[in-house]
Amino acid sequence: MFRHVVMFIWADDVDDDHIAAAGHALDTLPAKIDTIRSYVHGRDAGLGPTNANYVLVADFDDVDGFATYRDHPDHVAVVRQYFAKHTAQRMAVQHHVD
Amino acid sequence: MFRHVVMFIWADDVDDDHIAAAGHALDTLPAKIDTIRSYVHGRDAGLGPTNANYVLVADFDDVDGFATYRDHPDHVAVVRQYFAKHTAQRMAVQHHVD
Repeated sequence: MFRHVVMFIWADDVDDDHIAAAGHALDTLPAKIDTIRSYVHGRDAGLGPTNANYVLVADFDDVDGFATYRDHPDHVAVVRQYFAKHTAQRMAVQHHVD
Repeated sequence: MFRHVVMFIWADDVDDDHIAAAGHALDTLPAKIDTIRSYVHGRDAGLGPTNANYVLVADFDDVDGFATYRDHPDHVAVVRQYFAKHTAQRMAVQHHVD
């Protein structure tokens, strides 16, 4: 299995409606990108004062499955509309899982 | 389910031996902390030039299970020995999973 994890800190002008819409947009992707095996995301529960705001964990069979997702036009469109210019910080890791 | 995700960028003086030892130390925790339901971690595969270096995804039944883990002396000891002073940046999110 190959896992992609990404976290975001929203920009200051992002409101609850935007965050809800971003979540709904992400929810449409597993039906559109057939290399996605698991796709779990959500907004921070507010337990840690230094926490980031949103996280996504996406699993694929292999690196190629991840690359297909990363470059898929439907994924790119969601990133552009809801994340790219709306986040102050982004941190990502991909790794193999035994 | 309640999920905890944390990412790290290592400090400049962290070497491969330290990273391997940190991974082995994390691997000891599920046997010691009985609220852990799933515990998956690994080092970045190097696909993204701006990626962080290491990620952990830990699942619990609920917030209390996470809090037990967070405050457990064996977890705190691993954080102190392998992460606290050895990371340049840390980003975390906890969230409920339906």
